[in-house]
Amino acid sequence: MSDEEKNSAAPAGATRAPADYFTGVAWVKPLVPANDPTDCVVGEVTFEPDARNNWHTHPNGQVLVATGGTGYYQEKGKPAQLLHPGEAVSIAPNVVHWHGATAYSRFTHIAINPAASKGVVVWLERVTETEYQAAHA
Amino acid sequence: MSDEEKNSAAPAGATRAPADYFTGVAWVKPLVPANDPTDCVVGEVTFEPDARNNWHTHPNGQVLVATGGTGYYQEKGKPAQLLHPGEAVSIAPNVVHWHGATAYSRFTHIAINPAASKGVVVWLERVTETEYQAAHA
Repeated sequence: MSDEEKNSAAPAGATRAPADYFTGVAWVKPLVPANDPTDCVVGEVTFEPDARNNWHTHPNGQVLVATGGTGYYQEKGKPAQLLHPGEAVSIAPNVVHWHGATAYSRFTHIAINPAASKGVVVWLERVTETEYQAAHA
Repeated sequence: MSDEEKNSAAPAGATRAPADYFTGVAWVKPLVPANDPTDCVVGEVTFEPDARNNWHTHPNGQVLVATGGTGYYQEKGKPAQLLHPGEAVSIAPNVVHWHGATAYSRFTHIAINPAASKGVVVWLERVTETEYQAAHA
């Protein structure tokens, strides 16, 4: 276990986000049961400082609602966008993007995935250190 | 304007919830543009103490995520359920229910309505004072 992991406390009800698709330490807390009649997958994701997910897409889009700390959302080819609590982003189907904490703060958002039975996420390559640092410029 | 209204400050970006469907003072802040490609309607709703919406249903269900204060969620024929920040409720299509603040605290939740192009809400009768007080018992 790295020092980073030892120093990070999992939020109640959350488990570690999969290392294959996240760089750094992040936590995922499901908010809706599996196979819910709303056909939505909704979860609270907390990124420790420096953590972010890989580039990815959602076949039916996604809505993010920032609820704590400060983080970034970036669509491929566009500048990264700083997100604060109370701000939301709507992501159209198949748009390549990533999200995560800043280097200096935790970040928590609610992630809303509609029409989940038709697919939730397609994972792509990691966000490189260069790409991540560029978001802070 | 009543004393209750004068004492209540609208959260940034929010407008007053319609009096026809809400008892007391509540505020709605849209978090997703109209006709979004995700086909979701997502909003932050803040209820002042004593405020609640009418009994209602959603044709495609709804997910509520509590983010501030303390409030109630009640399905017709079941006991009211107290909600705290970080807790969520998944509401199946066509289930008759209401939500709102307690008598003694503000309550904020995010409301997620999927498949919005197929309908968002069907409003029914008001939650009576007797029904509302019974939630607190």
